Amino acid sequence: MTLLHEECGVVGVSFKEESQAALTLYYALYALQHRGQESAGITVHDGMQLWTLKDMGMVPDVFNRRDIQRLKGHTGIGHVRYSTTGGSKIENCQPLHVSSKSGTIAIAHNGNLVNSKELRCELEREGRIFLSESDTEVIAHLLVKELMHYDLEDAIQELIRRLIGSYSLVVLVDDKLIVIRDPLGIKPMCLGRIENGFVVASESVAIDILNGELIRDIAPGEVLIFSNGTYESRQLVKSKNYAHCVFEYIYFARPDSIIDGELVYNVRMRIGQTLSEEHPVKADIVSPVPDSGITYAIGFSKKSGIDYMEGLMKNRYIGRTFIMPGQDMRETAVRLKLNTIKPNIEGKSIVLVDDSIVRGTTSRRIIDLMRKSGTKEVHMRVASPPIISPCYLGIDMATREELVAAHKAVKGVEAVINADSLGYLSIEGLVRSIGIPYDDLCVGCLTGVYPVEIPGERCAKRQLKLSEFDEPVKKELRSLGSSKFNEPIKIENLKR
Amino acid sequence: MTLLHEECGVVGVSFKEESQAALTLYYALYALQHRGQESAGITVHDGMQLWTLKDMGMVPDVFNRRDIQRLKGHTGIGHVRYSTTGGSKIENCQPLHVSSKSGTIAIAHNGNLVNSKELRCELEREGRIFLSESDTEVIAHLLVKELMHYDLEDAIQELIRRLIGSYSLVVLVDDKLIVIRDPLGIKPMCLGRIENGFVVASESVAIDILNGELIRDIAPGEVLIFSNGTYESRQLVKSKNYAHCVFEYIYFARPDSIIDGELVYNVRMRIGQTLSEEHPVKADIVSPVPDSGITYAIGFSKKSGIDYMEGLMKNRYIGRTFIMPGQDMRETAVRLKLNTIKPNIEGKSIVLVDDSIVRGTTSRRIIDLMRKSGTKEVHMRVASPPIISPCYLGIDMATREELVAAHKAVKGVEAVINADSLGYLSIEGLVRSIGIPYDDLCVGCLTGVYPVEIPGERCAKRQLKLSEFDEPVKKELRSLGSSKFNEPIKIENLKR
Amino acid sequence: MTLLHEECGVVGVSFKEESQAALTLYYALYALQHRGQESAGITVHDGMQLWTLKDMGMVPDVFNRRDIQRLKGHTGIGHVRYSTTGGSKIENCQPLHVSSKSGTIAIAHNGNLVNSKELRCELEREGRIFLSESDTEVIAHLLVKELMHYDLEDAIQELIRRLIGSYSLVVLVDDKLIVIRDPLGIKPMCLGRIENGFVVASESVAIDILNGELIRDIAPGEVLIFSNGTYESRQLVKSKNYAHCVFEYIYFARPDSIIDGELVYNVRMRIGQTLSEEHPVKADIVSPVPDSGITYAIGFSKKSGIDYMEGLMKNRYIGRTFIMPGQDMRETAVRLKLNTIKPNIEGKSIVLVDDSIVRGTTSRRIIDLMRKSGTKEVHMRVASPPIISPCYLGIDMATREELVAAHKAVKGVEAVINADSLGYLSIEGLVRSIGIPYDDLCVGCLTGVYPVEIPGERCAKRQLKLSEFDEPVKKELRSLGSSKFNEPIKIENLKR
Amino acid sequence: MTLLHEECGVVGVSFKEESQAALTLYYALYALQHRGQESAGITVHDGMQLWTLKDMGMVPDVFNRRDIQRLKGHTGIGHVRYSTTGGSKIENCQPLHVSSKSGTIAIAHNGNLVNSKELRCELEREGRIFLSESDTEVIAHLLVKELMHYDLEDAIQELIRRLIGSYSLVVLVDDKLIVIRDPLGIKPMCLGRIENGFVVASESVAIDILNGELIRDIAPGEVLIFSNGTYESRQLVKSKNYAHCVFEYIYFARPDSIIDGELVYNVRMRIGQTLSEEHPVKADIVSPVPDSGITYAIGFSKKSGIDYMEGLMKNRYIGRTFIMPGQDMRETAVRLKLNTIKPNIEGKSIVLVDDSIVRGTTSRRIIDLMRKSGTKEVHMRVASPPIISPCYLGIDMATREELVAAHKAVKGVEAVINADSLGYLSIEGLVRSIGIPYDDLCVGCLTGVYPVEIPGERCAKRQLKLSEFDEPVKKELRSLGSSKFNEPIKIENLKR
Repeated sequence: MTLLHEECGVVGVSFKEESQAALTLYYALYALQHRGQESAGITVHDGMQLWTLKDMGMVPDVFNRRDIQRLKGHTGIGHVRYSTTGGSKIENCQPLHVSSKSGTIAIAHNGNLVNSKELRCELEREGRIFLSESDTEVIAHLLVKELMHYDLEDAIQELIRRLIGSYSLVVLVDDKLIVIRDPLGIKPMCLGRIENGFVVASESVAIDILNGELIRDIAPGEVLIFSNGTYESRQLVKSKNYAHCVFEYIYFARPDSIIDGELVYNVRMRIGQTLSEEHPVKADIVSPVPDSGITYAIGFSKKSGIDYMEGLMKNRYIGRTFIMPGQDMRETAVRLKLNTIKPNIEGKSIVLVDDSIVRGTTSRRIIDLMRKSGTKEVHMRVASPPIISPCYLGIDMATREELVAAHKAVKGVEAVINADSLGYLSIEGLVRSIGIPYDDLCVGCLTGVYPVEIPGERCAKRQLKLSEFDEPVKKELRSLGSSKFNEPIKIENLKR
Repeated sequence: MTLLHEECGVVGVSFKEESQAALTLYYALYALQHRGQESAGITVHDGMQLWTLKDMGMVPDVFNRRDIQRLKGHTGIGHVRYSTTGGSKIENCQPLHVSSKSGTIAIAHNGNLVNSKELRCELEREGRIFLSESDTEVIAHLLVKELMHYDLEDAIQELIRRLIGSYSLVVLVDDKLIVIRDPLGIKPMCLGRIENGFVVASESVAIDILNGELIRDIAPGEVLIFSNGTYESRQLVKSKNYAHCVFEYIYFARPDSIIDGELVYNVRMRIGQTLSEEHPVKADIVSPVPDSGITYAIGFSKKSGIDYMEGLMKNRYIGRTFIMPGQDMRETAVRLKLNTIKPNIEGKSIVLVDDSIVRGTTSRRIIDLMRKSGTKEVHMRVASPPIISPCYLGIDMATREELVAAHKAVKGVEAVINADSLGYLSIEGLVRSIGIPYDDLCVGCLTGVYPVEIPGERCAKRQLKLSEFDEPVKKELRSLGSSKFNEPIKIENLKR
Repeated sequence: MTLLHEECGVVGVSFKEESQAALTLYYALYALQHRGQESAGITVHDGMQLWTLKDMGMVPDVFNRRDIQRLKGHTGIGHVRYSTTGGSKIENCQPLHVSSKSGTIAIAHNGNLVNSKELRCELEREGRIFLSESDTEVIAHLLVKELMHYDLEDAIQELIRRLIGSYSLVVLVDDKLIVIRDPLGIKPMCLGRIENGFVVASESVAIDILNGELIRDIAPGEVLIFSNGTYESRQLVKSKNYAHCVFEYIYFARPDSIIDGELVYNVRMRIGQTLSEEHPVKADIVSPVPDSGITYAIGFSKKSGIDYMEGLMKNRYIGRTFIMPGQDMRETAVRLKLNTIKPNIEGKSIVLVDDSIVRGTTSRRIIDLMRKSGTKEVHMRVASPPIISPCYLGIDMATREELVAAHKAVKGVEAVINADSLGYLSIEGLVRSIGIPYDDLCVGCLTGVYPVEIPGERCAKRQLKLSEFDEPVKKELRSLGSSKFNEPIKIENLKR
Repeated sequence: MTLLHEECGVVGVSFKEESQAALTLYYALYALQHRGQESAGITVHDGMQLWTLKDMGMVPDVFNRRDIQRLKGHTGIGHVRYSTTGGSKIENCQPLHVSSKSGTIAIAHNGNLVNSKELRCELEREGRIFLSESDTEVIAHLLVKELMHYDLEDAIQELIRRLIGSYSLVVLVDDKLIVIRDPLGIKPMCLGRIENGFVVASESVAIDILNGELIRDIAPGEVLIFSNGTYESRQLVKSKNYAHCVFEYIYFARPDSIIDGELVYNVRMRIGQTLSEEHPVKADIVSPVPDSGITYAIGFSKKSGIDYMEGLMKNRYIGRTFIMPGQDMRETAVRLKLNTIKPNIEGKSIVLVDDSIVRGTTSRRIIDLMRKSGTKEVHMRVASPPIISPCYLGIDMATREELVAAHKAVKGVEAVINADSLGYLSIEGLVRSIGIPYDDLCVGCLTGVYPVEIPGERCAKRQLKLSEFDEPVKKELRSLGSSKFNEPIKIENLKR
């Protein structure tokens, strides 16, 4: 699957004593590079003021040794960013660094607000101006606005009250590092201990690279305020249920990360096994679509006893290239990226495992390629349930029009991708494999029901009748006995 | 002289019909490149919305053919920028492009506000935030704020009321082009007619390059509002006197520009002649410090009858280079840039003409170089009066501490630079050469008395006693019979 | 293992009719990018003359769409190159393009001559000059020299007579494409059919990417001469035995390539299984050092029945980075590249599979990292026999001093890398896994006996007594009943 | 005039003791940047071997501080290069660095061989190969070939015997620096003393920048061999007459250089004066085409008494730009580069002074521009005689077809460029202004008679009858009483 994701990675560090925060942030961003390759940025506080360095490009392109040495400071934040076309501008790079009455503030954000347009309008109506297109600038305005009236903690609580959507935030207010995770815990964020201080990051691999120790996940609705290498925690907001994004496990996060208590690698291995149970098939070999399908395929092979053998090979050096226009252009594009290992697949029945199907076009081309190489049968097994609805909360998959499963039943998708059989993981199987209760997961893209109000979409926060769901989802939900569709999520402000 | 200037060039175009505004702006910026080599930017309105392209670098580096072709639009603004270290960030590039309740606005600014810090504080106190360090963002906030309450014209009048300092502004409010020149006319701005439309620019050379016709200078305090290739003019504010910057003539502007009615080349030629009258000397040849001293030296030669002959040659390809540390490092630095033409200066008495003396260090090194090449006598003649006070209005010369003439009388400077004699142009001679009345010029750097209130400095707007001036300036002023030191400048809002 | 290899990839195409040879070469080089990331080059013949475009960098960096469109031609050659420091100069980029009495010639070379120094000296003694440090220039001189006296075929035969070492060559002599593989077949080269023509390449993946069909390997000592999309083959030289490089299978080639009849993936899978048979161990999981150890580990798991589970994760975005000096610098360097999946390895006995051990330092650091993460036991299994001698024929592993197995027995290496047990693949097991007779493989780095004369080294071409070998190798050879150590390889010129 | 020149600058240094030759070469190349902006290179000998660093780009782009610090050595050579399209390849960059039987050799060349094609063919017939298209590789082959049979001095003498054309060479043979100037002295080369050593360079400005002292010009046919900071001179070849290029004075060299005893600035000043005597005219002002016409115009003004005043201004920042296709494209191209100072030229009669006219198209456009700005009369005065024949010796002006004066008499050119009158400098006036006897100058482009044999052209080395010349040249030559057309130049080898 080629998700067109709009995702980010964030990190924050706080040291007890004078230390090279920038170098620590640099290494941590390096570990989070998979969360965004478009731009990178670091802000540090040097005891006097904030310094920001950010630019378009990957982490090693944006910072050189001299830059990092110059960025003195014992506390700081960092950001890597991916975005869809249009947002790819230097103005939208993060951290966003602003000056205000309440001091100098830098913010890095992972997530997506669903009410940013409304908030912008409201703020513009007050006479405010926007220099970028990012949610982050909206957050900055709101935070500064609340800080006019409230102390830091209350201002953050007000901020949380206003933001709808997903957000894991690291914020510097002068030399204070503040970490905020949205009340539904949609985007991940964890806390670790490193020599002389603490680190917070989107994924635990950023702690590993620093030779640190993962303490725990930041709780949904929790706020940490770091100062001089120690921190205080406030559970400012308490939600009855959470809404952890399932695609972090399925696709986005690194397999060696532990997210909300679950090792991603293990989740994927279990999904592969579950998939084998749910959609058994007689075949000669199990083969992944590399790289994202590999762990699933190994799990499938283990459970099914069918030999694991690679039938497709990925070009490790695939980079920016160009395709000359022509009749077989699309085929060439796939072939530049993937090659069949003909002797491994010729004349064989193959279980082909991929993480997900979005438009179905890539799957179709891969299967065509395999058939050309003489594969007898291709049984597609997909490590996620059908994606029937767009994501509004930080993973820019596609529009509803583009999503093949939004318009076709499984048999229809099977025909589109030209597979001999097609089996999707069930929602129930997904939930079981992840190991987190259904009611604490965001499965908006799989059910069309979202944990927050999105104009034109159904929301789990209001009472939904079972009959409002699509038939296949209805069946799934019935089997889950989920409370989600009949009981709204309540977010409760603890403090005020 | 190597002025560390903080200067910009601005341009705006408005066409009657669909036209390639971006290409026109590109050429115009090309003609204004001398006003700023650090960054360049263009904003156009395509009939629907504003598009901005800007980056660090010279005009041809920032824009390629494809960029310009893509920037469709019939109205637009452009900017080139130079700044001192620290300000050299992408965030500070212009035009500044913001969205607001009143629409999308883009602003390009040439000048320097002296109350920007106060305005920022005031705006921050209202809860506003700043993403850059530029005056332009301050102006954007103020304009949007006034547009909440007033129509465009009144909002601009309010804006002018709040801004203290120099500013020539081109502004797009959606598809309207607005041009504003400060009430004192400190920075230049002129209006020209081109095929199918109009152009406004910092200097008339931008009109020439477009094969256009210079109509006139924008009046101080005048506002032009362009729409569909026509414009309306409003004299929103009327000042009794103006304060045109004399250093635009002496150093900054291109010689082929006509500024406030005077051709810069002619001003320089007259200055050279005046200098010869004021400080005659018996010598073998007149020689300029290239390139800025050339026209002065030709004028001096013409008046004095002393042969013009170049004694110093400039390396045309001087670019970014490095100097290895060592004992003669500074000498090497000068030699990389300038070479003596030994046969032209050996054994001769030379009148050396330069535009100005700031710190005196470069002059000293040049004269040392000439003496090493066997020059018998060096009579330094300077095309400006002594610079005794910093500029706060757009030409970042140096601090008062660095200005050699702020601390030493002419004889003292003569000793510092190791000249056989030293003659500065008088203020009276300067005024006469420019051809604009003394009371309409800004000579703050030459007298220490500024046309606007600057904390810690004297201001021509309040009544000054002659005795408050330094002795040499006092003498000059007495001879001028100026009203400036005893009658305040009044700025009168015409509309409200 | 991080082999410091000095390797290249070559490709040649010949079309029947006017066609875009450059685009075909571009895609083919893209598939061979793993064979060299330092420079890339293409030469085509446009019907009149040769055109070469080459530069430092990866394939997509060196060529853009416009370049490829401009490089018209129906026949051409291409090259990608890696080299050790010092050789990294633009002068050494290939194809080498020379003009001579016999026409314009372009040459691209994969391999390493062991007598290039002698040949250079000989050619210099004749008054010739060298502009680069590459073997390719030596080959160009020799070819042009022979073409003075002989026709093309005889000249090539003379050339082959002079060259000692490994070489797979693609050569353009004006519009003729000539392909030469050395008589021992050390470096791979294969032939494929594509639409309207033929392609030759270092690996069959280059044929796959073009949607072509692999016809066969070029035989050792064979020469193909292409003209107008057809070719003639000459077996100019015939060697009794071959010497295919085993490290192409173990490390260098892509798993989806078929080299000398054997699919690399299958060889690796068989090696993993053989390794499990040769060095069985009781453990909880089998884990690879990614990426090179993965296929071996899967084979090991399959044979042994021990669960495959990844214990180490590679950062996919590892690029040029810097490490700040400090005490744990080396550890940081490993951690930037590899992360342990702690939950997968904590408290477990692990079979760790890697492709080879060169210096032993990386293995040591990886095992230390695993122990820090709580691994109970690490049983290292290595997919190659001990490397006891350097490679002179195209894979720049290390010097003999650096090779840990050149100085230590298995127990000694086990101690160095801090493993609980260490098992190397046997030579016999390697040969069996590859599926090519021992006497047709080059195992110089594993036995210290080379297929060609190398000063100071033993050579299989002369009679060797068994007693001349090291004890462990002696044992291996005895078990193989190989003829190689008692019967010299004979290379026989077939034509003259 | 925009000469499409194919020119270079060379420099060599030799220090007595360990010194930073590379830094010295870097500064010297900086001073010679005007002789070539396309590529730059430095070779130094570090006591053991030669190191070369070269690349496309200007001097500060090719070398950074670290490069220069790494290039240790006490002797070395440098090169800057301009070339016409086609030759613009990295392979053609200099110094050319080759290894040979006689040691490692590096060569940098300024000039153009007229028999390089013949020499290449001859060398190719001997079985030699060429990797570049440069004359320099031909010279390298010849030198190495002669060194097979002769000692260094004799080899150089043989080399000189074979080379026909212009060449100023700096050569490193291991740690020996050798400097060669062709027997006719066509291209300049001079010798200077610097601290601890010596420098040779194309122009004396390279000595000035190093704070050195010009000793003398290298004599035509002279060879200097430097070793350990001292040198020996050999007048290996003696020509009766020389052939110094007049265009070095007219256009190419820097005005502050002293070439063959004459200061270029003074030559230009005298030319301006002579031009005024030869073609007096009644006019309001004298105005140059900047920059190349400035010194001439000042000389013209001085002699004629007509006021000097600039009527055209050059954009100092003219760089790589693009012009959009359209009707007034060419006009725009001129306007981007040059602007009229309308008030200075409106309604006036103007003497416009340029250095030369090649195709006439640029002159035409400039004059049209001036007329558009209201100039009453334009009297063109040109600082060179009519260019009627191409240059084969290092200044790539244009082909004969393109040269307007090759096909039209003065009146015809006057019409083409739309001038009110046109006056060219006479050959006699040029010779007198330069101050070197006619018989020691190369005026091939002005007479069609060249100092060396060029196929299809007339040569001063053989007896020419006066009647063989074009009429205007005939007249000139008659007045000069030159021996050149009736007595051949003899080059006499002194040594053997």
